[in-house]
Amino acid sequence: MNKIVLAYSGGLDTSVAIPWLKDKGYDVVAAVLDVGQAGKNLSEIQQKALNVGAVESYVVDGKDEFAKDFVGPVIQANALYEGKYPLVSALSRPLIIKKLVEIAHETGAKAIAHGSTGKGNDQVRFETAIHALDPSLAIEAPIRDFHWSREEEIDYAKDHNVPVPIGKKSPYSIDDNLWGRANEAGILENPWNEAPEDAFALTAAVEETPDEADVLELTFKKGLPVAINGQEKSLVTIIEELNVLAGKHGIGRIDKIENRLVGIKSREIYEAPAAAVIMTAHKDLEDLTLERDLAHFKPVIEAKITELYYNGLYFSPLFDASMAFIEKSQEVVNGVVKMKLFKGQATAIARQSESNSLYDENLATYTDADSFDQVSAAGFIKLWSLPTTVFEQVNHIHD
Amino acid sequence: MNKIVLAYSGGLDTSVAIPWLKDKGYDVVAAVLDVGQAGKNLSEIQQKALNVGAVESYVVDGKDEFAKDFVGPVIQANALYEGKYPLVSALSRPLIIKKLVEIAHETGAKAIAHGSTGKGNDQVRFETAIHALDPSLAIEAPIRDFHWSREEEIDYAKDHNVPVPIGKKSPYSIDDNLWGRANEAGILENPWNEAPEDAFALTAAVEETPDEADVLELTFKKGLPVAINGQEKSLVTIIEELNVLAGKHGIGRIDKIENRLVGIKSREIYEAPAAAVIMTAHKDLEDLTLERDLAHFKPVIEAKITELYYNGLYFSPLFDASMAFIEKSQEVVNGVVKMKLFKGQATAIARQSESNSLYDENLATYTDADSFDQVSAAGFIKLWSLPTTVFEQVNHIHD
Amino acid sequence: MNKIVLAYSGGLDTSVAIPWLKDKGYDVVAAVLDVGQAGKNLSEIQQKALNVGAVESYVVDGKDEFAKDFVGPVIQANALYEGKYPLVSALSRPLIIKKLVEIAHETGAKAIAHGSTGKGNDQVRFETAIHALDPSLAIEAPIRDFHWSREEEIDYAKDHNVPVPIGKKSPYSIDDNLWGRANEAGILENPWNEAPEDAFALTAAVEETPDEADVLELTFKKGLPVAINGQEKSLVTIIEELNVLAGKHGIGRIDKIENRLVGIKSREIYEAPAAAVIMTAHKDLEDLTLERDLAHFKPVIEAKITELYYNGLYFSPLFDASMAFIEKSQEVVNGVVKMKLFKGQATAIARQSESNSLYDENLATYTDADSFDQVSAAGFIKLWSLPTTVFEQVNHIHD
Amino acid sequence: MNKIVLAYSGGLDTSVAIPWLKDKGYDVVAAVLDVGQAGKNLSEIQQKALNVGAVESYVVDGKDEFAKDFVGPVIQANALYEGKYPLVSALSRPLIIKKLVEIAHETGAKAIAHGSTGKGNDQVRFETAIHALDPSLAIEAPIRDFHWSREEEIDYAKDHNVPVPIGKKSPYSIDDNLWGRANEAGILENPWNEAPEDAFALTAAVEETPDEADVLELTFKKGLPVAINGQEKSLVTIIEELNVLAGKHGIGRIDKIENRLVGIKSREIYEAPAAAVIMTAHKDLEDLTLERDLAHFKPVIEAKITELYYNGLYFSPLFDASMAFIEKSQEVVNGVVKMKLFKGQATAIARQSESNSLYDENLATYTDADSFDQVSAAGFIKLWSLPTTVFEQVNHIHD
Repeated sequence: MNKIVLAYSGGLDTSVAIPWLKDKGYDVVAAVLDVGQAGKNLSEIQQKALNVGAVESYVVDGKDEFAKDFVGPVIQANALYEGKYPLVSALSRPLIIKKLVEIAHETGAKAIAHGSTGKGNDQVRFETAIHALDPSLAIEAPIRDFHWSREEEIDYAKDHNVPVPIGKKSPYSIDDNLWGRANEAGILENPWNEAPEDAFALTAAVEETPDEADVLELTFKKGLPVAINGQEKSLVTIIEELNVLAGKHGIGRIDKIENRLVGIKSREIYEAPAAAVIMTAHKDLEDLTLERDLAHFKPVIEAKITELYYNGLYFSPLFDASMAFIEKSQEVVNGVVKMKLFKGQATAIARQSESNSLYDENLATYTDADSFDQVSAAGFIKLWSLPTTVFEQVNHIHD
Repeated sequence: MNKIVLAYSGGLDTSVAIPWLKDKGYDVVAAVLDVGQAGKNLSEIQQKALNVGAVESYVVDGKDEFAKDFVGPVIQANALYEGKYPLVSALSRPLIIKKLVEIAHETGAKAIAHGSTGKGNDQVRFETAIHALDPSLAIEAPIRDFHWSREEEIDYAKDHNVPVPIGKKSPYSIDDNLWGRANEAGILENPWNEAPEDAFALTAAVEETPDEADVLELTFKKGLPVAINGQEKSLVTIIEELNVLAGKHGIGRIDKIENRLVGIKSREIYEAPAAAVIMTAHKDLEDLTLERDLAHFKPVIEAKITELYYNGLYFSPLFDASMAFIEKSQEVVNGVVKMKLFKGQATAIARQSESNSLYDENLATYTDADSFDQVSAAGFIKLWSLPTTVFEQVNHIHD
Repeated sequence: MNKIVLAYSGGLDTSVAIPWLKDKGYDVVAAVLDVGQAGKNLSEIQQKALNVGAVESYVVDGKDEFAKDFVGPVIQANALYEGKYPLVSALSRPLIIKKLVEIAHETGAKAIAHGSTGKGNDQVRFETAIHALDPSLAIEAPIRDFHWSREEEIDYAKDHNVPVPIGKKSPYSIDDNLWGRANEAGILENPWNEAPEDAFALTAAVEETPDEADVLELTFKKGLPVAINGQEKSLVTIIEELNVLAGKHGIGRIDKIENRLVGIKSREIYEAPAAAVIMTAHKDLEDLTLERDLAHFKPVIEAKITELYYNGLYFSPLFDASMAFIEKSQEVVNGVVKMKLFKGQATAIARQSESNSLYDENLATYTDADSFDQVSAAGFIKLWSLPTTVFEQVNHIHD
Repeated sequence: MNKIVLAYSGGLDTSVAIPWLKDKGYDVVAAVLDVGQAGKNLSEIQQKALNVGAVESYVVDGKDEFAKDFVGPVIQANALYEGKYPLVSALSRPLIIKKLVEIAHETGAKAIAHGSTGKGNDQVRFETAIHALDPSLAIEAPIRDFHWSREEEIDYAKDHNVPVPIGKKSPYSIDDNLWGRANEAGILENPWNEAPEDAFALTAAVEETPDEADVLELTFKKGLPVAINGQEKSLVTIIEELNVLAGKHGIGRIDKIENRLVGIKSREIYEAPAAAVIMTAHKDLEDLTLERDLAHFKPVIEAKITELYYNGLYFSPLFDASMAFIEKSQEVVNGVVKMKLFKGQATAIARQSESNSLYDENLATYTDADSFDQVSAAGFIKLWSLPTTVFEQVNHIHD
């Protein structure tokens, strides 16, 4: 019989998908990837899949790979979609597919199923990754195909012995992983509504944050954080610890109107406390260590990497070439940034790089230690302004 | 005799420049431009120039022109140098020169003098503007040419009846205008030193801010703020009021290592409370009203405008062409943003645009009101991923 | 009954579409737009539509509007898709739709039909334009929906009294207008096959071109050609004359592997003789009249405009904003370029601009007339190289 | 005594520089680098330096390194300054300095001298490279400092036993190497003068070219040419052979008004026959083998690399990071391009890539072999056009 690997979350939608795929003639292999989702009992989820009809069920630990191969480039590339969103959900999709394709190959499955709807970005990210990694695999997108009302879905669940959560459904649609949490739908669908406190889970309201700041030193090697206050830790641990600490200070809330790849605008609430701390510190250290022309051009590559992540093109030659640029640029991004976490903000208040600082106090100073050749400036300005000078002499636009 | 127009500030440097220029054979016409500098008595400054030897002395009101022609584009173009600095000092330089050239033409002066040192950006901004507006004008840069120690300058001042400020000199080098305040030098020259509280003047420390937020509605027309809480005000007034209100909440502090045009890195402390509020609100409203492709490309133009401002190329055909793009883009940026000012942060918490919102709740919703055609998605994804699919089939980089 | 406006070409495909649309319950209004297609009798085509079942049939003259609003921006923006293709077919699609929507509004039609297949770019260009201009109009794409073999189509044609061309079908798929001619399919589908001579219609093989060059002077105003050898002519006339003259010299052949928007690579043969002459001359005049920084940044905008044209996004706010930039840039592109047409090449051999040349012989010269301040250079170089100098001193990458 | 290494060419200017540097107290070490200059007897030049006063004189073979490290990136990056100029002179400068710095270190010299004037790009390229490779080295630029008329220079030469070339001085200023030849000055200084035949040396006038085309197959590996007609050759040999063959066909003439880094426009005549053939073929092969998104973004990196070369920033971290991108992109640029050389043009007439062609005839074909899913197109278009559709529905700009 025809096996299919399902990206399983344990929720109602992907649980209902199991009997639905069985009805279509599939043996369902459920797989849930641990990318640091908050408060989930993954072995319970693994069992639940079997309960509702899966023939096999796997939990795959992906946290370290997620941090290293997916979050790392985001840090190095200062990747914020539309200047704000650190790509939380966009990062897990290609890794989930990578693992599902591996399971498909191991189990002999010929198809992959995902639980995305037809109007979001995740369907694109899932399916583009499948096409890239093994285009021979068939794709099922049951939730996109259901066309059910909520009531019809519950009826179908009851008919097929899928447990239905008791009580009122959460008004929100949530996705989370190690790097943050995304929330949409419900009252948030009106952009003129302020996001209510129950929309947030990882961060305190600024009104509820401590009146004492936390100050910490974050050490970077090649653009990646490697230590907090001098203590070396894994990237996963650094992110986990900073999520707690910065969350307590209300850091990392994002409220944005976003352009989805599928062509609509949506309103999203994100929380990414560790991301806010790490990315602020990283950028600050780059200001100290990157040569000017590189620093001024790198945002062009950063924007491209961000777009490729968001648009589901992680497995692409353009991503790889762009990351070759980024990695080269990060060789000198070594040093320490002192961060203050306080009242909703992560602020870089001091920074140093023993080996790679390009800040030269003797060039920059206004004291007598000045080693800058001020005489050069006059010549510089003359040639600097020559093209516009000639332009005005000829065309008299501004004079 | 040969007249020269001096960009006069009232400080020791430009005061000493007056006898120095007289020694070089000039009749000095002093001119100070009101661009909203804090706490300066401009008519006293006007008189002081005459006291120390100027033959004529002018105060020119430039605040409205400054707001309209120099700050306005910064708002519309989300212009933040190196992602952080709202270009405070870079904005006043071309306007100062514009006014000085006018005075030169009116008074028959054949030269312009400015008080910049030889290692900053301002000398470039001043001189590039002079070359653009009237390349026949000679340029004097006395401070760049002094080569004096502090003691020598004071001795020269005393010899020439220039009043020397009593007491310890401020350790900082400061420039300010309506749009904000820049501070450098002194203890700030070590990037590992945290900026002390006496480095700030417009903003409260977050520790000292009110425990009650201020929430206000900012209305934009064509990308520019026109009203606070529904009350129409001039751009100058809006900025002045927000500087006070947001300053009280500790909003708008910036601490950065910056790449100067002259090739060195410097450490700068900026305060720009109104800028932080207005620019955050503006960007938020753009998220609601700009079409996606335009929104994603506009940052390329924004970066160019920012660079041109910073590098002293305001009077240039590239600036004009880039602003033609920006102005076209801003025709639809109309609406209201609700801003919360609290504990050092200006946050957009809600936004609406009656006439130009592209957010369509019926497309975005997860409720039954959904009008999005989910079936289109499958076809979209197939073509979207076709190039990378074929690439992987041929090259097997990731599979 | 329900009216539909059909973009009619007179060929078999769109002729068969008429009875097919009638079968679907439409009254078909045929419309053919004159955009300078070669060798077509448009009134015969108009009649043919009626013969095969259209209820109304229109020929619309679009040549001047095509030249002014669609070709003009291509010239000013040096728009060459993937560096080579002057966008011939991409230009006519949005204009055709504009006219069809007008006819729909006049005739009360509620739908538009186009004759594109499902694997080309033109379907996207047609439908995106329809959505932009009137999203309430329904869209029919009969050729995309036929799923017929060639034999089935001919049978259907015979059954419905649609005349079938006698003799062997051309092996090529051709589209042409004032700005050039596109050819694909047949033997060209193998990129290793050299394009045979019968693939070309507007240009002579270089082997057959005259042994005497033609030299002409092309005058531009605001970036558009306005005269040949001093004689003012309309843009349409200039293009038509140059197509003949440059075609005789074998100029304007393009053979390229192209990335289509729908995700596949195709092999295309283009001929665009006038485009080759005009665009070469235009670029050459820009080299003389555009200020350096503008000249170096303009290609970024050019690439965007080219992409928008190619991808069917002419009616978009990004196109409009980008053209605002381009138009501003072209104000100074006035002058004359001397072009030599010979043996397949259009070469700019001399150029002048009385009012806007930025070439200053006294600055450029190596004679004694030199007015360039060579002393400035040393200072310029010092500051120019300061960032990389410091970088190497710290990091020792290259030394 | 203080040693200085002089970049020696054997011409009058750098010969006169030797006694001039001696007068300044230097021991002059002359060094000439072989980068494939045409028709020069380098050992005679080596001897001449000693004759006019150098204490040591070296000829350094740099051709292979020049081809590999300087020309190779130009090919892979399609680097054409301002869309036309393949960077001939810009490429040799950093290599010359690299070798001169090595000689300085070996001979204990503390200074380097170059023969550039004060108004060209080469002085910047020389000095920026010196600053990058060893900022402790002093720099002398005698020609920039001479301020001599031609007569004064000749008198100085005669006084110091420097042989003065007999007969009329060439009206042109020429630089050449393996990659091509640059020519400026004289009658060329008027852009309205057509370049006379005596301005060219490597290429025949089209009027004088053979009436028979040459057709050859150029094989590329990782974006670099490795064989002609299947015969493997070194990059140096391929360039040398193509310079002769393509030069005979009049290929590679460039006539352009150029924006120099020092702020002036100049008129330049270049010849680069091999470059025209190789770069045309390379681009054509990229069209076949590069994935679309990569192909469309790569020009951004290409423009940056070109600019860095031209502006003397080869030794910079931005160059290195950009080349990391390029090298990654070139891994799949393997295949063969059939080039026709005829009447001044190098044309790609066929191309194939056994291992990396992304052209899929079954996707592209209009025959029954079609494997493209045309049904997907309708869905694609709907989402593709959704942002502009909503924009028009709200804003009615075009409807």
